[in-house]
Amino acid sequence: MVKVDLSGAMGFLDSTGPDYGAAGQAHRALAEGKGAGADFTGWRELPRRVQGEELKQITAAAERIRDTSEVLVVVGIGGSYLGARAGIELIQPKNGPEVIFAGTGLSPDALVSKLEQLGDRDFSINVVSKSGTTLEPAAAFRIFRGLLEKKYGAGARRRIYATTDKARGVLKTIADKEGYESFVVPDDVGGRFSVLSAVGLLPLAAAGCDVHTMVGAAAEAMYELDLRSPDNPAWQYAATRNALYAKGKKIEILASYEPSFRYMAEWWKQLYGESEGKNGVGIYPASVEYNADLHSMGQYIQDGPRTLMETVVSFDRPRKDYEMPFVMGDPDGLNYLAGRGLGEISRVAMEAVKAAHVAGGVPNMGVSVPRRDEEGFAELVCFFEMACAISGYMLGVNPFDQPGVEAYKKNMFRMLGKPGT
Amino acid sequence: MVKVDLSGAMGFLDSTGPDYGAAGQAHRALAEGKGAGADFTGWRELPRRVQGEELKQITAAAERIRDTSEVLVVVGIGGSYLGARAGIELIQPKNGPEVIFAGTGLSPDALVSKLEQLGDRDFSINVVSKSGTTLEPAAAFRIFRGLLEKKYGAGARRRIYATTDKARGVLKTIADKEGYESFVVPDDVGGRFSVLSAVGLLPLAAAGCDVHTMVGAAAEAMYELDLRSPDNPAWQYAATRNALYAKGKKIEILASYEPSFRYMAEWWKQLYGESEGKNGVGIYPASVEYNADLHSMGQYIQDGPRTLMETVVSFDRPRKDYEMPFVMGDPDGLNYLAGRGLGEISRVAMEAVKAAHVAGGVPNMGVSVPRRDEEGFAELVCFFEMACAISGYMLGVNPFDQPGVEAYKKNMFRMLGKPGT
Repeated sequence: MVKVDLSGAMGFLDSTGPDYGAAGQAHRALAEGKGAGADFTGWRELPRRVQGEELKQITAAAERIRDTSEVLVVVGIGGSYLGARAGIELIQPKNGPEVIFAGTGLSPDALVSKLEQLGDRDFSINVVSKSGTTLEPAAAFRIFRGLLEKKYGAGARRRIYATTDKARGVLKTIADKEGYESFVVPDDVGGRFSVLSAVGLLPLAAAGCDVHTMVGAAAEAMYELDLRSPDNPAWQYAATRNALYAKGKKIEILASYEPSFRYMAEWWKQLYGESEGKNGVGIYPASVEYNADLHSMGQYIQDGPRTLMETVVSFDRPRKDYEMPFVMGDPDGLNYLAGRGLGEISRVAMEAVKAAHVAGGVPNMGVSVPRRDEEGFAELVCFFEMACAISGYMLGVNPFDQPGVEAYKKNMFRMLGKPGT
Repeated sequence: MVKVDLSGAMGFLDSTGPDYGAAGQAHRALAEGKGAGADFTGWRELPRRVQGEELKQITAAAERIRDTSEVLVVVGIGGSYLGARAGIELIQPKNGPEVIFAGTGLSPDALVSKLEQLGDRDFSINVVSKSGTTLEPAAAFRIFRGLLEKKYGAGARRRIYATTDKARGVLKTIADKEGYESFVVPDDVGGRFSVLSAVGLLPLAAAGCDVHTMVGAAAEAMYELDLRSPDNPAWQYAATRNALYAKGKKIEILASYEPSFRYMAEWWKQLYGESEGKNGVGIYPASVEYNADLHSMGQYIQDGPRTLMETVVSFDRPRKDYEMPFVMGDPDGLNYLAGRGLGEISRVAMEAVKAAHVAGGVPNMGVSVPRRDEEGFAELVCFFEMACAISGYMLGVNPFDQPGVEAYKKNMFRMLGKPGT
């Protein structure tokens, strides 16, 4: 399970510590469906709900994709791709098709790069969109679908998997008409909370992740994270970051020492930024990759404005350690490390950074799971989702809406001359 | 040349606009060597200095690497890799060896991934370190050097290129003893300003970038950016961001609509974060990739705390446009876009986002260059460097030191038991 270490944060709080009373109230509102946006709290049930028939359908489709495709093109934006990409990059499954994420932008250069990357390899498409009207993925789907139809003719439709609304919308209509195999974006789950539905699980399974293990671990994690207690790591994280925010820590930097964590940080930024950044409030979610960024953002973190808090996600054990070699004559002076594992050395570096940042005035929260695998991924997802809901309620916002996302879309459709705008 | 568009920012400033008087004073201090850290302003001369013999040596070595290697392993951290990586990812040269960046962390999992990526292909190493004692690259160099020696025996030394101090330090000593071809990290240029020295140019050239064109464009850009005038785009950017900072815009989000810009944003974060984040002041440098992040950070940017400013870097023309296809029956309702280039559609999206964000209270600065190529890269590098120096002086800090980076290193070496600590 997830462990939260608050030893680097407590010194920055009042002597009463984090407000677990408020965390408990927020949790109760969530559990009883009495908080804002209660219609969108189905994510708590996803792991249990998806087990059984739906997971069977997902793994069967994933097998078919793996059997027939060297590449899977996942078309989706925001919550329709971030969770899957985060999981695939974190877990790094082997022997699956390459996954290309498309539909995240409109740059022709980026599209051409993706087409070159695809080449003439066999591929399938998983298009993920609740409505089918979001421009970026809709445009990409039109383009990649055209390629698929050119390549496979009538057989193209068997290579398209649509994850969309269960009953209505443009994409659902196309999928029904063309006979694409369809998966459901649940009505009671927002995009950023949807990775443990078919939205995330189909690409994860196709890439080679063990989604049975993942969903099992998630069900267990959701159960434990639903226990109302100050021992609940979601309470600890939510209450502490809110207390730090109230004390002027306006930016939260999510750090990891694993480069494979990059898209988990992107997923986390959407989850927290979109859930909490509204009504003029919200912690700014930023991320860094250590050790690399100790030599770029490190100076600012150590000595810049004291408006930062830092959350470090770590894994208890590396997958495979690597021993520092001995070199005769010690030309570079590193023989004092020879024979020690990089895993240990990296862990010492992490402790050294924590001490330096705390001494410099940056509160530090640690979040850890045992391993960088399907279970660890599921545990982190459930933890951050549950903590986000509690944290948003503590902050006094509806953590499940995103009204601000419409502003640019309205302008864009009007300026592009979309009929009816 | 770089153009700065302040139309989305002026409404947020006092009626007097940006303080070009202060920008001029800062520029004068820089030009006359009278500002803080004046010993580290050699970057202004780099393009002119490197032309001639040094550039010949760099391109000759690059040719040798390209002739003998399927992979170039660049070992370096911070300013010793970010500029090269930014340029290679932005320009995307073809037909060069694959470049693997190592030495940026201590994770054994990440190291093992890189070793797998390298496989048994022919490779060379470019190790970049002023001193040779920074732990992360020193450890990676020890490991990759060991592999190289195992693979090539006595020939390994001809596959190692050391970019380091001209006279002293651990790496210089090893390079001299072993007979590695060496390149110089100039004494009067800090790491984050060093991309137009051998530090950046050797990997850029080896990857296939036209460094002659790049350096020529940089020399011209540095000349123009040294003209003391409110028309100077570096003045415009530096003065405007400082004015916005004084008005409570504490976070600057660097945005681009090109995914290939990602490491340019990372390079920019080091440049500005490390130059300005000290003495308890400095704008927090963050970045986003649009359109993707309109569906993750977009909500926060539109409706969160009004402490943000946004700087959007764009390229006037795509490399290759892509026309939206027509589809019979218009199932997805996108035929109103058919026949239009994605380049135009993307540009409309950019204008729509600007209007939405400005209306939402986020000042917007535009930075543009004509093309995403060697010239555009050089122009952006020179622009951001010059503006950073001026901006740092306007803020009242020494933009050329980084005392805060030492804090974690000291802890780490002590905790690892390095002899003498």
